[in-house]
Amino acid sequence: MIRNIKLTLRFNGSEFHGWQIQENAETVQECTVNAIERIIGSRVTLNGCSRTDSGVHANMFCCNFRTEKQIDCKKLMRGLNAVLPDSISVYGCEEMPCEFHSRFDCKGKEYIYKIWNSEAKNPFMKNLALHYPYKLDAEMLNTQAADFVGTYDFSAFCSSGTDVEDKTRTVYSCKVTREGNMVVFSVKGDGFLYNMVRIMVGTLLDINSGKIEKGTIRDIILSKDRKRSGITAKAEGLYLNEVYYDEKEVMR
Amino acid sequence: MIRNIKLTLRFNGSEFHGWQIQENAETVQECTVNAIERIIGSRVTLNGCSRTDSGVHANMFCCNFRTEKQIDCKKLMRGLNAVLPDSISVYGCEEMPCEFHSRFDCKGKEYIYKIWNSEAKNPFMKNLALHYPYKLDAEMLNTQAADFVGTYDFSAFCSSGTDVEDKTRTVYSCKVTREGNMVVFSVKGDGFLYNMVRIMVGTLLDINSGKIEKGTIRDIILSKDRKRSGITAKAEGLYLNEVYYDEKEVMR
Repeated sequence: MIRNIKLTLRFNGSEFHGWQIQENAETVQECTVNAIERIIGSRVTLNGCSRTDSGVHANMFCCNFRTEKQIDCKKLMRGLNAVLPDSISVYGCEEMPCEFHSRFDCKGKEYIYKIWNSEAKNPFMKNLALHYPYKLDAEMLNTQAADFVGTYDFSAFCSSGTDVEDKTRTVYSCKVTREGNMVVFSVKGDGFLYNMVRIMVGTLLDINSGKIEKGTIRDIILSKDRKRSGITAKAEGLYLNEVYYDEKEVMR
Repeated sequence: MIRNIKLTLRFNGSEFHGWQIQENAETVQECTVNAIERIIGSRVTLNGCSRTDSGVHANMFCCNFRTEKQIDCKKLMRGLNAVLPDSISVYGCEEMPCEFHSRFDCKGKEYIYKIWNSEAKNPFMKNLALHYPYKLDAEMLNTQAADFVGTYDFSAFCSSGTDVEDKTRTVYSCKVTREGNMVVFSVKGDGFLYNMVRIMVGTLLDINSGKIEKGTIRDIILSKDRKRSGITAKAEGLYLNEVYYDEKEVMR
Protein backbone atom coordinates (compact mmCIF):
# COMPACT_ATOMS: atom_id res chain seq x y z
CA MET A 1 0.00 0.00 0.00
CA ILE A 2 1.28 3.46 -0.94
CA ARG A 3 1.59 5.89 1.95
CA ASN A 4 1.69 9.68 1.68
CA ILE A 5 4.04 11.19 4.28
CA LYS A 6 4.07 14.87 5.23
CA LEU A 7 7.19 16.31 6.84
CA THR A 8 7.41 19.65 8.65
CA LEU A 9 10.86 21.21 8.54
CA ARG A 10 12.72 24.13 10.02
CA PHE A 11 15.82 25.23 8.11
CA ASN A 12 18.56 27.82 8.23
CA GLY A 13 18.70 28.95 4.61
CA SER A 14 22.05 30.71 4.83
CA GLU A 15 23.88 27.56 3.79
CA PHE A 16 21.57 26.64 0.88
CA HIS A 17 20.69 27.80 -2.60
CA GLY A 18 17.00 27.72 -1.71
CA TRP A 19 14.63 24.77 -1.61
CA GLN A 20 14.52 23.50 -5.17
CA ILE A 21 16.98 20.92 -6.51
CA GLN A 22 19.40 22.38 -9.05
CA GLU A 23 22.70 21.31 -10.51
CA ASN A 24 25.96 22.20 -8.79
CA ALA A 25 24.36 23.84 -5.76
CA GLU A 26 23.33 22.55 -2.35
CA THR A 27 19.59 22.86 -1.79
CA VAL A 28 17.26 21.94 1.07
CA GLN A 29 15.22 19.66 -1.18
CA GLU A 30 18.24 17.66 -2.27
CA CYS A 31 19.59 17.31 1.29
CA THR A 32 16.18 16.12 2.46
CA VAL A 33 15.69 13.67 -0.43
CA ASN A 34 19.16 12.25 0.28
CA ALA A 35 18.34 11.88 3.97
CA ILE A 36 15.05 10.10 3.16
CA GLU A 37 16.92 7.76 0.81
CA ARG A 38 19.41 6.90 3.56
CA ILE A 39 16.59 6.05 5.96
CA ILE A 40 14.05 4.24 3.75
CA GLY A 41 16.43 2.96 1.08
CA SER A 42 14.79 4.46 -1.97
CA ARG A 43 14.73 7.73 -3.91
CA VAL A 44 11.44 9.64 -3.56
CA THR A 45 9.82 12.62 -5.25
CA LEU A 46 9.54 15.30 -2.58
CA ASN A 47 6.89 18.02 -3.12
CA GLY A 48 7.60 21.27 -1.30
CA CYS A 49 4.95 23.78 -0.21
CA SER A 50 6.80 26.58 -1.96
CA ARG A 51 10.04 27.55 -3.68
CA THR A 52 12.35 29.59 -1.55
CA ASP A 53 15.23 31.78 -2.67
CA SER A 54 18.85 31.35 -1.75
CA GLY A 55 19.44 32.49 1.83
CA VAL A 56 15.76 32.47 2.86
CA HIS A 57 14.92 30.61 6.09
CA ALA A 58 11.95 28.61 7.29
CA ASN A 59 10.48 28.18 10.75
CA MET A 60 7.89 25.97 9.08
CA PHE A 61 8.17 24.33 5.69
CA CYS A 62 5.95 21.43 4.64
CA CYS A 63 6.72 18.78 2.06
CA ASN A 64 5.32 15.34 1.19
CA PHE A 65 6.38 12.16 -0.56
CA ARG A 66 4.89 8.76 -1.38
CA THR A 67 6.44 5.46 -0.35
CA GLU A 68 5.52 1.82 0.15
CA LYS A 69 7.98 1.49 3.02
CA GLN A 70 6.16 0.62 6.26
CA ILE A 71 8.33 2.68 8.59
CA ASP A 72 6.79 4.24 11.68
CA CYS A 73 6.53 8.06 11.49
CA LYS A 74 8.34 8.62 14.81
CA LYS A 75 11.22 6.39 13.74
CA LEU A 76 11.41 8.06 10.34
CA MET A 77 11.62 11.51 11.96
CA ARG A 78 14.30 10.37 14.40
CA GLY A 79 16.27 8.80 11.56
CA LEU A 80 16.05 11.88 9.38
CA ASN A 81 17.20 14.16 12.19
CA ALA A 82 20.16 11.85 12.77
CA VAL A 83 21.39 12.10 9.17
CA LEU A 84 20.33 15.64 8.16
CA PRO A 85 22.84 18.49 8.53
CA ASP A 86 22.38 20.79 11.58
CA SER A 87 20.90 23.45 9.30
CA ILE A 88 17.74 21.36 8.64
CA SER A 89 15.52 19.72 11.23
CA VAL A 90 12.28 17.75 11.00
CA TYR A 91 9.76 18.42 13.77
CA GLY A 92 6.65 16.95 12.22
CA CYS A 93 6.04 13.68 10.39
CA GLU A 94 2.55 12.33 9.71
CA GLU A 95 0.69 10.12 7.30
CA MET A 96 -1.78 12.00 5.10
CA PRO A 97 -4.65 10.97 2.81
CA CYS A 98 -3.43 9.74 -0.57
CA GLU A 99 -4.46 12.90 -2.44
CA PHE A 100 -2.68 15.42 -0.15
CA HIS A 101 -0.12 17.66 -1.90
CA SER A 102 1.91 20.10 0.22
CA ARG A 103 1.89 22.80 -2.48
CA PHE A 104 -1.52 22.54 -4.16
CA ASP A 105 -3.42 22.08 -0.90
CA CYS A 106 -1.73 25.02 0.82
CA LYS A 107 -4.36 27.64 1.74
CA GLY A 108 -2.00 30.36 2.85
CA LYS A 109 1.31 31.29 4.40
CA GLU A 110 2.82 33.65 6.88
CA TYR A 111 6.21 35.20 6.24
CA ILE A 112 8.20 37.24 8.72
CA TYR A 113 11.16 39.52 7.99
CA LYS A 114 13.63 40.28 10.79
CA ILE A 115 15.49 43.57 10.94
CA TRP A 116 18.21 44.19 13.55
CA ASN A 117 17.93 47.92 14.04
CA SER A 118 21.01 49.14 15.86
CA GLU A 119 24.23 50.82 14.82
CA ALA A 120 26.13 47.77 16.10
CA LYS A 121 25.63 44.41 14.40
CA ASN A 122 24.16 41.47 16.29
CA PRO A 123 26.81 38.70 16.48
CA PHE A 124 24.05 36.10 17.00
CA MET A 125 22.07 37.07 13.89
CA LYS A 126 24.67 36.86 11.12
CA ASN A 127 22.74 35.93 7.95
CA LEU A 128 19.60 35.64 10.11
CA ALA A 129 18.36 39.24 10.04
CA LEU A 130 18.89 42.37 7.98
CA HIS A 131 21.21 44.79 9.76
CA TYR A 132 19.69 48.28 9.46
CA PRO A 133 21.80 50.85 11.35
CA TYR A 134 19.59 53.95 10.88
CA LYS A 135 16.58 55.06 12.91
CA LEU A 136 13.54 52.95 12.05
CA ASP A 137 10.06 54.19 13.01
CA ALA A 138 8.30 50.85 13.53
CA GLU A 139 5.01 52.41 14.64
CA MET A 140 4.80 54.58 11.52
CA LEU A 141 5.71 51.60 9.32
CA ASN A 142 3.04 49.49 11.01
CA THR A 143 0.45 52.10 9.99
CA GLN A 144 1.80 52.12 6.41
CA ALA A 145 1.87 48.30 6.24
CA ALA A 146 -1.88 48.11 6.87
CA ASP A 147 -2.37 49.41 3.30
CA PHE A 148 -1.10 46.09 1.94
CA VAL A 149 -4.16 44.29 3.32
CA GLY A 150 -6.75 43.33 0.71
CA THR A 151 -7.18 41.54 -2.61
CA TYR A 152 -5.14 43.20 -5.36
CA ASP A 153 -3.12 42.60 -8.48
CA PHE A 154 0.32 42.84 -6.83
CA SER A 155 2.30 43.23 -10.10
CA ALA A 156 4.11 46.25 -8.60
CA PHE A 157 5.46 43.89 -5.92
CA CYS A 158 6.71 41.12 -8.18
CA SER A 159 10.16 40.65 -9.69
CA SER A 160 10.38 39.84 -13.36
CA GLY A 161 11.38 36.33 -14.28
CA THR A 162 8.14 34.72 -13.19
CA ASP A 163 5.70 32.96 -15.51
CA VAL A 164 2.68 33.39 -13.23
CA GLU A 165 -0.14 35.03 -15.19
CA ASP A 166 -2.67 35.91 -12.52
CA LYS A 167 -0.96 38.26 -10.10
CA THR A 168 -3.97 38.74 -7.86
CA ARG A 169 -3.33 37.78 -4.23
CA THR A 170 -5.08 38.38 -0.93
CA VAL A 171 -3.12 39.74 2.03
CA TYR A 172 -5.01 39.02 5.26
CA SER A 173 -2.77 40.87 7.68
CA CYS A 174 0.43 42.88 7.59
CA LYS A 175 2.22 44.28 10.65
CA VAL A 176 5.44 45.80 11.89
CA THR A 177 6.37 45.29 15.54
CA ARG A 178 9.41 46.12 17.63
CA GLU A 179 10.98 44.30 20.56
CA GLY A 180 14.09 46.18 21.65
CA ASN A 181 16.42 46.44 18.66
CA MET A 182 14.58 43.76 16.69
CA VAL A 183 11.93 44.97 14.27
CA VAL A 184 9.74 42.27 12.73
CA PHE A 185 7.57 42.62 9.64
CA SER A 186 4.91 39.90 9.35
CA VAL A 187 2.48 39.22 6.56
CA LYS A 188 -0.17 36.57 6.04
CA GLY A 189 -1.80 35.85 2.70
CA ASP A 190 -3.28 33.22 0.44
CA GLY A 191 -0.15 33.24 -1.71
CA PHE A 192 2.82 35.38 -2.64
CA LEU A 193 4.44 36.39 -5.93
CA TYR A 194 8.14 36.09 -6.70
CA ASN A 195 10.04 38.36 -4.25
CA MET A 196 6.73 39.92 -3.12
CA VAL A 197 7.52 39.98 0.60
CA ARG A 198 11.05 41.29 0.05
CA ILE A 199 9.74 44.14 -2.15
CA MET A 200 7.06 44.96 0.46
CA VAL A 201 9.81 45.23 3.09
CA GLY A 202 12.05 47.23 0.74
CA THR A 203 9.20 49.64 0.06
CA LEU A 204 8.67 50.17 3.81
CA LEU A 205 12.41 50.81 4.24
CA ASP A 206 12.24 53.36 1.41
CA ILE A 207 9.27 55.00 3.15
CA ASN A 208 11.29 55.09 6.36
CA SER A 209 14.20 56.83 4.62
CA GLY A 210 11.87 59.27 2.83
CA LYS A 211 12.68 57.95 -0.66
CA ILE A 212 9.05 56.89 -1.09
CA GLU A 213 6.27 59.12 0.23
CA LYS A 214 4.12 58.02 3.16
CA GLY A 215 0.55 57.03 2.37
CA THR A 216 1.31 55.93 -1.19
CA ILE A 217 1.31 52.13 -0.85
CA ARG A 218 -2.27 51.80 -2.10
CA ASP A 219 -1.41 53.99 -5.14
CA ILE A 220 1.72 51.94 -5.88
CA ILE A 221 -0.29 48.70 -5.76
CA LEU A 222 -2.93 50.13 -8.12
CA SER A 223 -0.24 51.39 -10.54
CA LYS A 224 0.95 47.75 -11.06
CA ASP A 225 4.30 49.38 -11.80
CA ARG A 226 7.37 47.66 -10.33
CA LYS A 227 9.36 50.87 -10.84
CA ARG A 228 7.24 52.69 -8.25
CA SER A 229 7.79 50.20 -5.40
CA GLY A 230 10.97 49.97 -3.35
CA ILE A 231 14.13 47.89 -3.38
CA THR A 232 14.09 44.11 -2.96
CA ALA A 233 15.25 43.66 0.65
CA LYS A 234 18.01 41.07 1.14
CA ALA A 235 17.03 37.41 1.51
CA GLU A 236 18.77 36.96 4.88
CA GLY A 237 15.94 38.52 6.96
CA LEU A 238 13.14 36.46 5.40
CA TYR A 239 11.50 33.44 7.06
CA LEU A 240 8.61 31.32 5.88
CA ASN A 241 6.98 31.27 9.31
CA GLU A 242 3.79 29.28 8.94
CA VAL A 243 2.04 27.21 6.28
CA TYR A 244 -1.73 26.78 6.47
CA TYR A 245 -3.78 23.88 5.14
CA ASP A 246 -6.98 25.02 6.83
CA GLU A 247 -8.72 28.04 5.30
CA LYS A 248 -10.14 29.14 8.66
CA GLU A 249 -6.69 29.31 10.25
CA VAL A 250 -5.08 31.55 7.66
CA MET A 251 -7.92 34.09 7.94
CA ARG A 252 -7.80 34.18 11.72
CA MET B 1 45.45 63.89 29.69
CA ILE B 2 44.77 60.21 30.25
CA ARG B 3 41.23 59.09 29.45
CA ASN B 4 39.52 55.96 30.75
CA ILE B 5 37.23 54.44 28.12
CA LYS B 6 34.56 51.84 28.88
CA LEU B 7 33.31 49.61 26.06
CA THR B 8 30.16 47.49 26.14
CA LEU B 9 30.35 44.43 23.89
CA ARG B 10 28.11 41.67 22.67
CA PHE B 11 29.90 38.56 21.41
CA ASN B 12 29.18 35.15 19.97
CA GLY B 13 31.58 32.98 21.94
CA SER B 14 31.37 29.94 19.69
CA GLU B 15 34.32 31.12 17.63
CA PHE B 16 36.54 32.05 20.58
CA HIS B 17 38.58 30.44 23.32
CA GLY B 18 36.94 32.70 25.88
CA TRP B 19 37.76 36.29 26.80
CA GLN B 20 41.30 36.14 28.14
CA ILE B 21 44.36 36.46 25.90
CA GLN B 22 46.32 33.22 25.60
CA GLU B 23 48.91 31.88 23.23
CA ASN B 24 47.87 30.06 20.06
CA ALA B 25 44.14 30.62 20.50
CA GLU B 26 41.76 33.30 19.30
CA THR B 27 40.18 35.19 22.18
CA VAL B 28 37.72 38.06 22.44
CA GLN B 29 40.21 40.16 24.41
CA GLU B 30 42.92 39.81 21.78
CA CYS B 31 40.54 40.58 18.89
CA THR B 32 39.32 43.67 20.72
CA VAL B 33 42.80 44.89 21.66
CA ASN B 34 43.86 44.45 18.02
CA ALA B 35 40.83 46.41 16.82
CA ILE B 36 41.56 49.23 19.29
CA GLU B 37 45.16 49.32 18.09
CA ARG B 38 44.00 49.64 14.48
CA ILE B 39 41.76 52.57 15.37
CA ILE B 40 43.83 54.57 17.88
CA GLY B 41 47.29 53.46 16.75
CA SER B 42 48.60 52.10 20.04
CA ARG B 43 48.47 48.90 22.09
CA VAL B 44 46.35 49.22 25.25
CA THR B 45 45.75 47.14 28.36
CA LEU B 46 42.11 46.06 28.25
CA ASN B 47 40.47 45.11 31.57
CA GLY B 48 37.49 42.78 31.21
CA CYS B 49 34.63 42.54 33.72
CA SER B 50 35.09 38.79 33.95
CA ARG B 51 36.83 35.79 32.45
CA THR B 52 34.63 33.68 30.25
CA ASP B 53 35.16 30.10 29.16
CA SER B 54 35.59 28.88 25.63
CA GLY B 55 32.21 28.89 23.82
CA VAL B 56 30.43 31.14 26.35
CA HIS B 57 28.54 34.12 24.87
CA ALA B 58 27.80 37.64 26.06
CA ASN B 59 24.83 39.89 25.50
CA MET B 60 26.68 42.39 27.67
CA PHE B 61 30.36 42.42 28.49
CA CYS B 62 32.13 45.50 29.82
CA CYS B 63 35.81 46.34 29.52
CA ASN B 64 37.93 49.46 29.91
CA PHE B 65 41.28 50.85 28.82
CA ARG B 66 43.32 54.01 29.28
CA THR B 67 44.59 56.16 26.44
CA GLU B 68 45.83 59.67 25.72
CA LYS B 69 44.29 59.61 22.26
CA GLN B 70 41.61 62.34 21.93
CA ILE B 71 39.23 60.36 19.75
CA ASP B 72 35.49 60.98 20.07
CA CYS B 73 33.61 58.01 21.65
CA LYS B 74 31.08 57.75 18.79
CA LYS B 75 33.85 57.68 16.20
CA LEU B 76 35.81 55.11 18.20
CA MET B 77 32.76 52.84 18.43
CA ARG B 78 32.06 53.16 14.70
CA GLY B 79 35.71 52.44 13.90
CA LEU B 80 35.84 49.39 16.15
CA ASN B 81 32.65 47.94 14.64
CA ALA B 82 34.15 48.42 11.18
CA VAL B 83 37.28 46.39 11.96
CA LEU B 84 36.00 43.81 14.48
CA PRO B 85 34.87 40.39 13.21
CA ASP B 86 31.08 39.85 12.92
CA SER B 87 31.17 37.76 16.09
CA ILE B 88 31.96 40.81 18.30
CA SER B 89 30.13 44.12 18.34
CA VAL B 90 30.48 47.26 20.43
CA TYR B 91 27.23 48.96 21.41
CA GLY B 92 28.44 51.20 24.17
CA CYS B 93 31.47 53.49 24.45
CA GLU B 94 31.83 56.12 27.16
CA GLU B 95 34.44 58.02 29.08
CA MET B 96 34.63 57.07 32.76
CA PRO B 97 36.26 58.61 35.85
CA CYS B 98 39.97 57.80 36.02
CA GLU B 99 39.60 55.22 38.81
CA PHE B 100 36.90 53.08 37.12
CA HIS B 101 37.84 49.41 36.61
CA SER B 102 35.38 47.14 34.76
CA ARG B 103 36.18 44.14 36.95
CA PHE B 104 36.80 45.54 40.42
CA ASP B 105 33.89 47.97 40.28
CA CYS B 106 31.42 45.37 39.10
CA LYS B 107 28.63 44.96 41.68
CA GLY B 108 26.92 41.97 40.14
CA LYS B 109 26.04 40.04 37.02
CA GLU B 110 23.19 38.24 35.40
CA TYR B 111 23.78 35.05 33.45
CA ILE B 112 21.23 33.24 31.35
CA TYR B 113 21.41 29.69 30.04
CA LYS B 114 19.38 28.75 26.95
CA ILE B 115 18.03 25.23 26.47
CA TRP B 116 16.30 24.24 23.23
CA ASN B 117 13.89 21.59 24.47
CA SER B 118 12.58 19.64 21.51
CA GLU B 119 13.40 16.32 19.92
CA ALA B 120 14.42 18.16 16.75
CA LYS B 121 17.41 20.50 16.84
CA ASN B 122 17.01 24.21 16.18
CA PRO B 123 18.97 25.10 13.00
CA PHE B 124 19.17 28.74 14.13
CA MET B 125 20.69 27.95 17.52
CA LYS B 126 23.73 25.85 16.64
CA ASN B 127 26.30 26.52 19.41
CA LEU B 128 23.87 29.09 20.85
CA ALA B 129 21.75 26.87 23.11
CA LEU B 130 21.96 23.44 24.68
CA HIS B 131 19.86 20.92 22.77
CA TYR B 132 17.91 18.86 25.31
CA PRO B 133 15.58 16.38 23.55
CA TYR B 134 13.81 14.92 26.63
CA LYS B 135 10.78 16.28 28.49
CA LEU B 136 11.78 19.22 30.68
CA ASP B 137 9.45 20.37 33.46
CA ALA B 138 10.29 24.09 33.54
CA GLU B 139 7.73 24.92 36.23
CA MET B 140 9.09 22.28 38.60
CA LEU B 141 12.67 23.41 37.90
CA ASN B 142 11.69 27.01 38.59
CA THR B 143 10.50 25.96 42.05
CA GLN B 144 13.76 24.05 42.64
CA ALA B 145 15.90 26.96 41.39
CA ALA B 146 14.50 29.26 44.08
CA ASP B 147 16.61 27.29 46.59
CA PHE B 148 19.78 28.80 45.10
CA VAL B 149 18.77 32.27 46.35
CA GLY B 150 20.73 33.47 49.36
CA THR B 151 24.25 33.99 50.67
CA TYR B 152 26.16 30.71 50.87
CA ASP B 153 29.54 29.10 50.47
CA PHE B 154 28.96 27.69 46.99
CA SER B 155 31.94 25.26 47.03
CA ALA B 156 29.63 22.45 45.86
CA PHE B 157 29.02 24.51 42.71
CA CYS B 158 32.62 25.30 41.82
CA SER B 159 34.98 23.39 39.56
CA SER B 160 38.46 22.67 40.84
CA GLY B 161 41.30 24.62 39.30
CA THR B 162 40.39 27.92 40.90
CA ASP B 163 42.55 29.80 43.39
CA VAL B 164 39.68 31.77 44.91
CA GLU B 165 39.71 31.29 48.68
CA ASP B 166 36.42 32.79 49.78
CA LYS B 167 33.67 30.86 48.03
CA THR B 168 30.81 32.80 49.59
CA ARG B 169 28.53 34.44 47.04
CA THR B 170 25.06 35.97 47.12
CA VAL B 171 22.46 34.87 44.59
CA TYR B 172 19.70 37.51 44.35
CA SER B 173 17.35 35.70 42.00
CA CYS B 174 17.22 32.43 40.12
CA LYS B 175 14.48 31.43 37.67
CA VAL B 176 13.51 28.98 34.97
CA THR B 177 11.03 30.13 32.32
CA ARG B 178 9.69 28.59 29.13
CA GLU B 179 8.64 30.21 25.85
CA GLY B 180 7.60 27.49 23.42
CA ASN B 181 10.51 25.07 23.03
CA MET B 182 13.01 27.48 24.56
CA VAL B 183 13.68 27.08 28.28
CA VAL B 184 15.75 29.83 29.88
CA PHE B 185 17.54 29.64 33.23
CA SER B 186 18.50 33.05 34.62
CA VAL B 187 20.48 33.93 37.71
CA LYS B 188 21.59 37.20 39.22
CA GLY B 189 24.25 37.49 41.87
CA ASP B 190 27.09 39.57 43.29
CA GLY B 191 29.63 37.22 41.73
CA PHE B 192 30.05 33.68 40.48
CA LEU B 193 32.64 30.96 41.05
CA TYR B 194 34.39 29.02 38.28
CA ASN B 195 31.69 27.08 36.33
CA MET B 196 29.11 27.92 39.03
CA VAL B 197 26.25 28.71 36.63
CA ARG B 198 26.94 25.68 34.45
CA ILE B 199 26.93 23.37 37.51
CA MET B 200 23.68 24.98 38.75
CA VAL B 201 22.10 24.23 35.36
CA GLY B 202 23.57 20.72 35.29
CA THR B 203 22.14 20.06 38.74
CA LEU B 204 18.68 21.16 37.60
CA LEU B 205 18.96 18.87 34.55
CA ASP B 206 19.91 16.00 36.88
CA ILE B 207 16.88 16.80 39.05
CA ASN B 208 14.73 16.79 35.89
CA SER B 209 16.01 13.34 34.93
CA GLY B 210 15.61 12.02 38.48
CA LYS B 211 19.33 11.47 39.03
CA ILE B 212 19.30 14.03 41.86
CA GLU B 213 16.36 14.15 44.24
CA LYS B 214 13.96 17.11 44.22
CA GLY B 215 14.20 19.47 47.20
CA THR B 216 17.87 18.74 47.90
CA ILE B 217 19.54 21.86 46.45
CA ARG B 218 19.81 23.55 49.86
CA ASP B 219 21.37 20.35 51.30
CA ILE B 220 23.85 20.10 48.44
CA ILE B 221 24.91 23.74 48.94
CA LEU B 222 25.42 23.18 52.68
CA SER B 223 27.44 19.99 52.04
CA LYS B 224 30.04 22.06 50.11
CA ASP B 225 30.69 18.80 48.27
CA ARG B 226 31.16 19.09 44.49
CA LYS B 227 30.45 15.35 44.17
CA ARG B 228 26.84 15.88 45.28
CA SER B 229 25.94 18.51 42.67
CA GLY B 230 25.21 17.73 39.03
CA ILE B 231 27.11 17.73 35.77
CA THR B 232 28.72 20.87 34.35
CA ALA B 233 26.31 21.85 31.55
CA LYS B 234 27.96 22.63 28.19
CA ALA B 235 29.30 26.13 27.59
CA GLU B 236 27.24 26.73 24.43
CA GLY B 237 24.01 27.65 26.28
CA LEU B 238 25.62 30.20 28.62
CA TYR B 239 25.39 33.97 28.16
CA LEU B 240 26.70 36.75 30.37
CA ASN B 241 23.51 38.79 30.07
CA GLU B 242 24.03 41.85 32.19
CA VAL B 243 26.80 43.51 34.17
CA TYR B 244 25.89 45.87 37.00
CA TYR B 245 27.94 48.76 38.35
CA ASP B 246 25.14 50.07 40.54
CA GLU B 247 24.38 48.08 43.70
CA LYS B 248 20.72 49.07 43.64
CA GLU B 249 20.22 47.69 40.13
CA VAL B 250 21.59 44.24 40.81
CA MET B 251 19.32 43.79 43.84
CA ARG B 252 16.22 44.94 41.98
